[in-house]
Amino acid sequence: MTVLMIIEFEPIGFVKTAVEKVPRHWTVSEAEGTIVINEEYGQGLKDIKAGQRIVVLFYFHQSPRFTSEFLVQTPPHRGERLGVFSICSPIRPNPIGMSVVEVLGVEGCVIRIKGLDMRDGTPVLDIKPAVEQDPA
Amino acid sequence: MTVLMIIEFEPIGFVKTAVEKVPRHWTVSEAEGTIVINEEYGQGLKDIKAGQRIVVLFYFHQSPRFTSEFLVQTPPHRGERLGVFSICSPIRPNPIGMSVVEVLGVEGCVIRIKGLDMRDGTPVLDIKPAVEQDPA
Repeated sequence: MTVLMIIEFEPIGFVKTAVEKVPRHWTVSEAEGTIVINEEYGQGLKDIKAGQRIVVLFYFHQSPRFTSEFLVQTPPHRGERLGVFSICSPIRPNPIGMSVVEVLGVEGCVIRIKGLDMRDGTPVLDIKPAVEQDPA
Repeated sequence: MTVLMIIEFEPIGFVKTAVEKVPRHWTVSEAEGTIVINEEYGQGLKDIKAGQRIVVLFYFHQSPRFTSEFLVQTPPHRGERLGVFSICSPIRPNPIGMSVVEVLGVEGCVIRIKGLDMRDGTPVLDIKPAVEQDPA
């Protein structure tokens, strides 16, 4: 049985960066840029501080549409065919990206970040604290 | 300027668990359950193995609708009012959850997991490898 359910999101903001060729993954990135959050959400940024790491969820807005031929892919820099849920490819059933970046500073609705792997203009869906430990 | 952009996703599967009161966060959870992936995506699971950790992105399907009063919240077990983007609250502009869970095994389209903090019936949006290092 397939349950039909459409889930709708709107961007909370967008990535801006002058870097033309962004690194392929945040773990190997030193690239800098900003996340510009819509004004209505600005107050939600009040506890984001320079030096911390944040998780950014975003929309791979330039990816080709997913079809079954992408269920198994050979990632660049790897020589094996791997299931889509074991790799970070932007071509996936729901094209959501996740990167962990360093905060350089926050001014108003603008977060300056380092270590990005998103292209200029990428829609941002959510920002979360990067936690490995119990946050309570 | 606000750019109007609606992004649509469909669940790739659903969480099933018999645990009635799930722990509040995956970092303090030993709860077990399964993720049942839609058959069309089953092949994408081929490289997920017992013992590894996966990132699960999901939809907080039972959360109240976000309004500006939730921009700053006091999380349970913490005594301070914090911006929504610094906490893991299910009430957020785009109600996407992220948990890191341990894989106990994969059989067909069913992933058995440990350490979940999602309720039974939670729609799953994506599964990614839990990487801290360069995956290349």
